[in-house]
Amino acid sequence: MRQSNAQLKADRRTEILAAAQRCFARSGFHKASMQEICAEAQMSPGNLYRYFSSKEEIIAGISERNRAEAAQSFAAVVNSPDFFAGLAECARYHLVERSAEEVGLCAEIMAESRRNPEIAAQSQQIEREVKAGLVGILRHAVDQGEISNDVDVDGAATVLMAIADGIFWRRAMDPGFDAEIVLPLILKMIHCLLAKPCVDAGNETEKPQ
Amino acid sequence: MRQSNAQLKADRRTEILAAAQRCFARSGFHKASMQEICAEAQMSPGNLYRYFSSKEEIIAGISERNRAEAAQSFAAVVNSPDFFAGLAECARYHLVERSAEEVGLCAEIMAESRRNPEIAAQSQQIEREVKAGLVGILRHAVDQGEISNDVDVDGAATVLMAIADGIFWRRAMDPGFDAEIVLPLILKMIHCLLAKPCVDAGNETEKPQ
Repeated sequence: MRQSNAQLKADRRTEILAAAQRCFARSGFHKASMQEICAEAQMSPGNLYRYFSSKEEIIAGISERNRAEAAQSFAAVVNSPDFFAGLAECARYHLVERSAEEVGLCAEIMAESRRNPEIAAQSQQIEREVKAGLVGILRHAVDQGEISNDVDVDGAATVLMAIADGIFWRRAMDPGFDAEIVLPLILKMIHCLLAKPCVDAGNETEKPQ
Repeated sequence: MRQSNAQLKADRRTEILAAAQRCFARSGFHKASMQEICAEAQMSPGNLYRYFSSKEEIIAGISERNRAEAAQSFAAVVNSPDFFAGLAECARYHLVERSAEEVGLCAEIMAESRRNPEIAAQSQQIEREVKAGLVGILRHAVDQGEISNDVDVDGAATVLMAIADGIFWRRAMDPGFDAEIVLPLILKMIHCLLAKPCVDAGNETEKPQ
């Protein structure tokens, strides 16, 4: 396949995933049909099936895209001159700024993984990768002396993921919930979990900016 | 109705709810049929329908029971001689000790509320009550001087609920997750969110930007 065709195909995949995301978030994973996704993407079923043969494959594509985004976010934290500032930016992007549609879709995937083993297996694979990414940035921060070296890096990564799930779920379920309002509280708690001790003989607190 | 009959009926309701909980956690809310619940409760459909006319009514009954349990837990925190010790006990009970079956059912209800407006309305009502309960215990702790009076009580209650959702979700979805291991980290974070500043002189508290 020539480069231009490959690019065209990649663009088309991106468009289909965006259309499917709108359908899933609007109608739910079960109710959204391949027909609805075709209509949303303005493609014939025959054409769309050349890219994705099932809703599960589409979900896998969306997950893959989200995984790539997470990897980018983690790299940005590692490259940030200040660990806590970088983490705060990452938290703001993922917990506050992601669209209601993305959050709704994420809740759909979470709900669907309760009863669809294929989706559950995909989710668990992604969870493992996200966790490995978080452990990586925490270990890097320990190495750089930016967080306490007493931190249980594995446990802390799990806690961060649980908090993110909880915030996502609340955004998806409670129209009155404003993640912006709780973000400072979450950041304060994370700082406390990770920062060097605030009272420790000969080891003064390193304050975030 | 005589008292003994009322008691008999209440006991029967409790048994049905326990049987339904096992079915929902095992098969999922959708796949579990009223027939399966009848078999699990060892009742005829005609008899079971005298108590609950639909799966939604059964879920409402389970939610009502959970709500009563939450109210009891909150009362125990308020009556505890030490607020943080009481809160830790409450957190241990709800996040660690509740059975896998209860956690699975809770995840089922969360997932179902994505697509079933009746369940969603019930969940939101319970969320409001749980939040009011949490705000109540936090206000009480402020009044008693047990936590900082700078605490954003409403935001903190929301954060606690989000963390609980996140832990529950992880317990339900990840067989390798051990809530026991992360509990101390969660409690440390909550303490940091609520406690009076750890350094009294001046304004030396840890504060993220």
